[in-house]
Amino acid sequence: MRVLVAGADGYLGFCLSMHLANNGFDVVGVDNFSRRRWVAEVGSHSATPIKSMQERLATFERAFGRKMDFEYGDLTDYRFVRYVLDKYRPDTVVHLGEQSSAPYSMMDVDHAVFTQTNNIVGTLNLLHAIRKIVPQCHLIKMGSMGEYGMPNIDIPEGFFEIEYRGRKDILPFPKRAFTDWYHWSKVHDSGNIMLACEIWDLRSTDLMQGVVYGTRTDEMVNDSLLTRFDFDAVFGTVLNRFCAQAVLGQKLTVYGAGGQRRPFIALEDSIHCLRLAVENPPDKGEYLVFNQFDEAYSVLEFAEKVKKVGDKLGLDVEIEHVENPRIEVEEVRYYNPVHEKLYELGFKPKHTMDEVLNVVLADLTKYRDRLVEKKDKNSQTVRWKAD
Amino acid sequence: MRVLVAGADGYLGFCLSMHLANNGFDVVGVDNFSRRRWVAEVGSHSATPIKSMQERLATFERAFGRKMDFEYGDLTDYRFVRYVLDKYRPDTVVHLGEQSSAPYSMMDVDHAVFTQTNNIVGTLNLLHAIRKIVPQCHLIKMGSMGEYGMPNIDIPEGFFEIEYRGRKDILPFPKRAFTDWYHWSKVHDSGNIMLACEIWDLRSTDLMQGVVYGTRTDEMVNDSLLTRFDFDAVFGTVLNRFCAQAVLGQKLTVYGAGGQRRPFIALEDSIHCLRLAVENPPDKGEYLVFNQFDEAYSVLEFAEKVKKVGDKLGLDVEIEHVENPRIEVEEVRYYNPVHEKLYELGFKPKHTMDEVLNVVLADLTKYRDRLVEKKDKNSQTVRWKAD
Repeated sequence: MRVLVAGADGYLGFCLSMHLANNGFDVVGVDNFSRRRWVAEVGSHSATPIKSMQERLATFERAFGRKMDFEYGDLTDYRFVRYVLDKYRPDTVVHLGEQSSAPYSMMDVDHAVFTQTNNIVGTLNLLHAIRKIVPQCHLIKMGSMGEYGMPNIDIPEGFFEIEYRGRKDILPFPKRAFTDWYHWSKVHDSGNIMLACEIWDLRSTDLMQGVVYGTRTDEMVNDSLLTRFDFDAVFGTVLNRFCAQAVLGQKLTVYGAGGQRRPFIALEDSIHCLRLAVENPPDKGEYLVFNQFDEAYSVLEFAEKVKKVGDKLGLDVEIEHVENPRIEVEEVRYYNPVHEKLYELGFKPKHTMDEVLNVVLADLTKYRDRLVEKKDKNSQTVRWKAD
Repeated sequence: MRVLVAGADGYLGFCLSMHLANNGFDVVGVDNFSRRRWVAEVGSHSATPIKSMQERLATFERAFGRKMDFEYGDLTDYRFVRYVLDKYRPDTVVHLGEQSSAPYSMMDVDHAVFTQTNNIVGTLNLLHAIRKIVPQCHLIKMGSMGEYGMPNIDIPEGFFEIEYRGRKDILPFPKRAFTDWYHWSKVHDSGNIMLACEIWDLRSTDLMQGVVYGTRTDEMVNDSLLTRFDFDAVFGTVLNRFCAQAVLGQKLTVYGAGGQRRPFIALEDSIHCLRLAVENPPDKGEYLVFNQFDEAYSVLEFAEKVKKVGDKLGLDVEIEHVENPRIEVEEVRYYNPVHEKLYELGFKPKHTMDEVLNVVLADLTKYRDRLVEKKDKNSQTVRWKAD
């Protein structure tokens, strides 16, 4: 089976490409390296020293005796998308090639417009090119659990039955995403993909994924195969930021009260879920939604986890609450997303958060110099509110 | 009160600008005349002979003794949007400046991408510029009843209470729009506007409007003040197309069975609703949704209305069913959108469809030569299905 991974140079994309290539899939990676440029734009770099794609491919081939194809290009260029689908005729496209930072989308009007157009146009181009060239192809799209927002009712996997004024219908769960242009770009993508399945009989799996954490997968047999790990306040997830702060001896900065719950999944578990999605394509015309996460924690809860694991490693971690630069629910609220479908396909989380945090903190300690070099960047937050 | 009308050269925009200027509002119109170019691109023109904006403004001033301001520019250019808001500091922006044809968005990947980026970026720019320059300003956005699609349950005005697994929340009605990129661009806009109200305390009214029909408003005291009337298969509504066919002696081409129900509103009633929205701004931070239509008819029902009215005028109208180029529900189905809020604000429909059809058919008969000139264009449909 041939899988095209869009965003193959990214945090998940590189791990997934290696995992699939190491497990008998033909892999072709696509990237324009924009994530490297965006992180440089905000003045930071990956905590892990990542190699160029050329070196990555060569190292992987030496280590595993498997070759991966790679094409440099931008998904917002329809001619490129058509070219690459026509050349490789993939059975599956895993689309991880989007701008994925909420704060980046909130920097100003240019970054808001860039985020939404980049993400929407890339996905529209893929849908049109798949229809024309490989209509049987399965599109796996990375969405976000943040598309659902924080409703006060359970969150189904995509669709549910609504009863209203004595009548019933099965409809998409109403999207009221987290409070930024990035998460809404994912909502827009989901609508567009659902439409393409409906009118063109395409098949797609839309993954509502939680926050991914971790630095390692089985294929990282030497550090030239490490994936990126962002810790700045724009591209680093809250967990990454906390781990970097713990290693730097800074206080963990919890935004506001920290009661806001978020769904999490370990890096290797996320790759496992992606492989399950690759191996279980929906029927023609079907738009399938998985809620892809393991457990939900509040921001304060996982700050405390980082503290517990860090303290054991002798890091002496402290937590402080800072003014929330975002506009979001901070208090403890009901949050109960359903996540059953991937488990039914065989998903078994292999990693506990404590275990993974041990590895992450060890990796960051190893590359502490790279954190020190950009240590002011994990506090340079983007403010949601008007000044 | 100063009102900025974006899309002031369009079908609704020109009528609304005249109506507001004639009723004591300070009006500044904005347009880049793109609708004229798009209709030319598909090989057609307005059935009514519309004048240039310069002539329109001069004629209006002579007829009513009121001046309107006008600025040529494109909403996708943030510098233009900032400039025009800063120069005029409007109390209200009525945003009618979007690409509004479903078939145009389905022509190919370029038109799909153009429609979504044009509409989304224009609205994003307005939201950002309003936040920066006139944060109290009321944004009235033209949405579409088509954003809701055809659910088997009642359609509330924007939000409703959902009970699921024993818990309740008030959430946006789930959007599963009509089957084209244009209607989804409106869904995306609605999400973005809701977000801006939430995080930036903007105020906005989102109008889920039905299909508008008619050629005349009170201000059209001479034919130099006529608004456009598109009858080609790309930009003409189904009703406009039927009226042109009736006048041309062609059979009315009903797509498929014609059971699909659509909500309708007469042109002058639509302008009345827009004025009510202008006069009733929501609170700061409030995102208000109105379902703006008068009555729902099936496509076959209004084909029969056109036949009835046309036959009385001696046009001898015939109806035929043709293969549906779109992918949509064709059979008679439950369709019951709520529409109460505008009525509560004082909306009283003044016109019956029969009355308005009489006027439309008379106007089209007057300009029959212009229909004849482009008569093949009302059958050049865009196909949704793969060839």
